[in-house]
Formats: sequence, C-alpha cells, structure tokens
Amino acid sequence: MASFLEESPHDPALLPADIEIAERVLEQARGSVAALAGAEPEEVVFTSGATEANNLALKGSGLGPGDEILVGATEHSSVQYPARTLEKQGVRVVWIPVDGGGRVDPAGVARALTPATRLVAVMAANPETGTLQPVEAIGARCRERDVRFLVDAAAAAGQVPVQARAWNADYVSLSAHKFGGPRGVGALVVREGVRLLPLIEGGVQEGGRRGGTENLAGIAGMGEAAGIARGEGARRSARLAGMRDRLWEGVRARVGDVARHGDPEHCLPGHLSLSFAGAEGEALLVGLWRRGVIASSGSACFAHARKPSYVLRAMGVSDALAQCSLLFTLGEELDESAIERVAEATAEVVARLRRVSAAAAGTV
Amino acid sequence: MASFLEESPHDPALLPADIEIAERVLEQARGSVAALAGAEPEEVVFTSGATEANNLALKGSGLGPGDEILVGATEHSSVQYPARTLEKQGVRVVWIPVDGGGRVDPAGVARALTPATRLVAVMAANPETGTLQPVEAIGARCRERDVRFLVDAAAAAGQVPVQARAWNADYVSLSAHKFGGPRGVGALVVREGVRLLPLIEGGVQEGGRRGGTENLAGIAGMGEAAGIARGEGARRSARLAGMRDRLWEGVRARVGDVARHGDPEHCLPGHLSLSFAGAEGEALLVGLWRRGVIASSGSACFAHARKPSYVLRAMGVSDALAQCSLLFTLGEELDESAIERVAEATAEVVARLRRVSAAAAGTV
Repeated sequence: MASFLEESPHDPALLPADIEIAERVLEQARGSVAALAGAEPEEVVFTSGATEANNLALKGSGLGPGDEILVGATEHSSVQYPARTLEKQGVRVVWIPVDGGGRVDPAGVARALTPATRLVAVMAANPETGTLQPVEAIGARCRERDVRFLVDAAAAAGQVPVQARAWNADYVSLSAHKFGGPRGVGALVVREGVRLLPLIEGGVQEGGRRGGTENLAGIAGMGEAAGIARGEGARRSARLAGMRDRLWEGVRARVGDVARHGDPEHCLPGHLSLSFAGAEGEALLVGLWRRGVIASSGSACFAHARKPSYVLRAMGVSDALAQCSLLFTLGEELDESAIERVAEATAEVVARLRRVSAAAAGTV
Repeated sequence: MASFLEESPHDPALLPADIEIAERVLEQARGSVAALAGAEPEEVVFTSGATEANNLALKGSGLGPGDEILVGATEHSSVQYPARTLEKQGVRVVWIPVDGGGRVDPAGVARALTPATRLVAVMAANPETGTLQPVEAIGARCRERDVRFLVDAAAAAGQVPVQARAWNADYVSLSAHKFGGPRGVGALVVREGVRLLPLIEGGVQEGGRRGGTENLAGIAGMGEAAGIARGEGARRSARLAGMRDRLWEGVRARVGDVARHGDPEHCLPGHLSLSFAGAEGEALLVGLWRRGVIASSGSACFAHARKPSYVLRAMGVSDALAQCSLLFTLGEELDESAIERVAEATAEVVARLRRVSAAAAGTV
C-alpha cells in the first residue's frame, strides 16, 4: 500500500506505465478477493466498504412499486436503512424473524416467498452476536424460486469461509478492515448475469458498475489481506474458537447469572456475547477497560447512540438485559493466561457493579 | 497516513483511545478541507471522491417528476450520468451550452431558469481544457431565484481558489488526488440547511449524511494535502501559469496550424489544450512519450474508449480536429529548459506525423 501512496501521483488513466501498474494491482486484488469470496474475479466490484456494497446491491437491483423483498430482522443498518428507503419508493419490505439464537429459519423464508418477492437479504454472520445464518439453505430456496439473494458477509470474511457460489448468493458484501485490511475499502461480489445499476455513476471503472478514480492503495491492501485471510483462516478460526470456549468456561465458572447470546453451535469463532443481569453494559466496559480489557457493547456503528440493541431485541432479549450486554471479540495475540485474566477481570467488575446496583436499590 | 494504516486495526467506534484519535483526525481534516473550500467544517461530508460527491448531490437532492435541472454541456460524466438517471425518473434535464472557449453564459443560465428549476450544475474548471466557469456570477443568479447550485470543483481545487460561500454554491465536490492527496477519497461540501438524502445509508458517520466506516488514512491524507494546497496555491499557480504561457509560445513559435482550446483568459494555470490538424492525438501521445514527455488526450475517465471529446464537441470543435487534440498538464517540477524541450519535442512529433499523414493521403 505504501508504494501506491508514495508513487504514481497522477491519474491512473493518464500515464501508460501507471495504467499498467494500476491494472495489474487491480487484477491481482480482484483475483485474491474473488478467491476469498468463492467467486470469479470479474464478479468483484470494489467499493468503499460493505456499507456501500449493501446499498449498491439493494438500490442497484432495479426494484420498484409492486416488488417485494425479505430482510432479516438482525441485518446490519446498511441493509435495513436502504430497505426502508426502497419501502418509501413503493417496495414492500417483509421482515424475517429470528429465533432465540438469532437465526433465520430457511423453511420460514421459503414460506414467506410470494410471486412478488424479488430479493432476500440475510447476512452470513452477525457482528454483534457472532450468530451464523444458514445462508446455504436460504440460498437454495431463493434459487429454486429465482429470487435474488444478498448476503452481507462483512463480519464473516476472514473468520469463516465465504462461499458465494455454494451459497447461491447473487450479491455478497465485504469490508477489508474486517479481515485485516485497511478501512474505507470493500467489495460487492455480483454473480455473473445479475442485474446491477450503478449507485456511483460517471466512469468506466469496475466495468461501469462503480465509477470514480480507484482507491488503488486501499484495493492493494484489501487484496493482500484477502490472500492472508484465505491462507490462515482455518487455522486461525480453530485457535480463536478454542480461546472463546475457554473464556466462556472461565467466566461461567466465576460469575453466576450470566447469559450467552447467539447460537453456540453456529457462531463466529472469536465472538462471545454475554449479559450480566444487574451490571450495566457501559459500566462493564469502563471497568474492564481500567483493567486493560477492551470489549464492546452494541453495534460498532451506533456506539455513540446508547440504545438497546435491536439485534438482541429481535432475539427476544429484554431491553433491561440487553443494556447489560457485552461483546468480547478475540484476537489472535491472546494466549491461555490472557484468557484467564480476562475471565477474572470480568468476574471482579461484574461483582462490584452488582454490589453497587444492589446498594442503590436499597436491598443491601 | 502511514500511522493510520499501521496502527488502529480495530473499528474506530470500539476502542475508547481509537475513538479519540479517529475523531481528532476527522475533525482536523474536516477543518482543513473546509478552509480549502471556503466553507465551514460541519458542511464537509467525506466521500470516496468527487464522483461519489457529484452523485450524492444530484441523487440526494430529493428531486422527482416535475422538477427541472440545468446542467452544463461540458460537465464531468459523474454529473452528466446521474443527471440522465434523474431524467429517467421524470426530472427534466436542460443542457446549458458553452461558447467557443467552453464557458457558460450566466445571463443564459438566468434566462433558462423556470419556476420548476430546482438545481443548476456548472463545474468550476474543466479537467480537459482547463476552462474556468463564471461560477460566482452563476451562483448569484441561482441564489436570487432560490435554486440550488452544484459546483464540481475537482479540477479547480489546488489550482485556483475554491470559494463555496462566495460562489453561493450549495454543493461543492472535491477529489483529494487532484490536489496532491491520495486516490479514493474526496468530499461533498453541503451548505448548512440544504437538503441532502444519503446515497450510502447505514451509519451515523458524517452526521448521518454518508454511512460506512471512515477511510481514516485517506481522510488524514486529504486533510494534509488541503492544508498544503491552501498554503502554496497562489505561489504555485503563478509559477505554473508562467510555464504554461512559455510552453504555448514555444509551441506556437515552432509549429504552424495549432489551435488552442479553452479560454486563455479563464483557464487553470497548469493546463494547455491544443490541436494539431493532421496529427492524430493518440499518435502524438506515443511520439511524445518516446521522447520522455507525458501528455494526455481526452478525458482521463474515458482514456480507454477512444471517442472524440464531448467537451471539445460542445465548444464547436470538429470531430476531426478533436481527434488531433492533446492536453499538457504542467507539474511544479518543470523548469524553463524542460519547457523548451517539451516544445521542441512537440514540434518534432507533429512535423513527423504530418509528413506521414500527407504521404498516406498521397499528396507527397
């Protein structure tokens, strides 16, 4: 990436040598991202991230009044907001419920399909709970009925295999920074032959599917990260899942009344979403942070707006308990002793907060 | 930029320390870009470039059937294409002609305004000819009639002052790489109180006007480049204009039958657009390139598609002559002897190509 930031200050279309370098970089990155996504290079459209990719898929699908789309209740806001915009334009939006683990039932999707249904949007993995959706089963139902299928794979890529072809996905969204690449670059993988109207028009870049001078450094970085993620993904995932299970056991052994959110059988390897009744999430974060542990609460995009999580709410979690939720996302650098320290710190902070809230309630 | 690529691998909304760094970087860059554009920091919406910014302004202005927009005939494709998309949605698009120098007549714009006109789009400078538009005079007419005014300032920024406020511009588009910053980042400056519907939805970033994880490194680079461009702009422009005039004199002294395109009185300082009848543009480029001179022909975005320039055509230049056009864009590193060498190389290549084409036509 550094070389593309230091050199080639000119427009890639102007200098013959630059055109050649730019085209080679773009094609290498395209191949690498396609391989990570289980797709073909010419199906990759580089964007500024998964948010743009989700907007492009929904707004670029050419839907209008009379058309119907099915959208998962726990989809990212970059799917839900454009869906609501389509709704204002006369598209009927049907929200697909999730079970207590946050999963969509493929048979439920099949039953909800009508002759007017044009598109189904269900994410591969939820960034807040780690829940993996049965996208392959959903994609098969969509393909049978010739309905387009959008899979937001931003949280999944680099953690679990992304398989655009096997999932029968027509659109797959990716963000580079979610798998070790730079921020501000991503891709929409669009199955060959599937309609896509550009959202950002005005150039022949990306086969006319996304105009504008390419973020060459960012795309180069995304390509590199995709190659590394693909090579190390399985080993990394196994290691993270082991650590995650250890953390869960460590916390459970030390703290009573802890709820684990999501589906333990179908979960991103590095995600652990918990709630501790009587210990407010924001206070938990601060307490952990003081002990050197960085966790998060709620969706990253709405961290400023302290609202109960719509994801947990859709899973049937009460607002009161959702306010006491906490997300651990494990990094590769952790070892077993670090996991024990995190479990211990969590137990201490929860115990302290519960004493405080019990005192405030006058029960002590 | 390097520090943001090497550090902070996590989502900016997750880590307290990262949030603080990210917010400081964003606010510094926002202030710097606002200063370059003659606007206020809170009016700056960071995008992936001017192409996205132009799309955002046009598609985000909330226009629909019955509304009318006026668009300059030589606008960039990232303005023309979204305008045509709006046209398909029922918006009436009126194309504003330019004179032989490529300029729009402000009085003509005023005459073309109707009670249905909602928006006028005229660029600050044309990237192909360097022609500067009378945006201040056009903006004044728009403001009188309460019509929104979009100024694509991508080619102007860093070369001539950008003055969103003084131009009465409601939307101003910028691309960082046009003034020394990185590719893949830009901004739309939106006047306070002016309506803007987001094109990329799904997050609270950029005040809800543009969702998605921020391209922090790119934005930091754009901010730095804006500060440098603002500080050095006037000195740099004067120097470039002197070199440009010297190149024009040098070529004119050596080559007969050369046409200069654009308006010499109102032109970007580093731009020189020429046509040499009987010497095809692509062959000129290759000949110059072999002599170590990098010029360009046509618009950067359509360099792959060898069509006669719509910009020159709108200025009344014949297709035959437009095919013989060449754009010199001068860099600061040039000195007087380099300029003489470029003029000499141009004369040699033109003379050789004219001999070849005369021979091919059987006149020699």
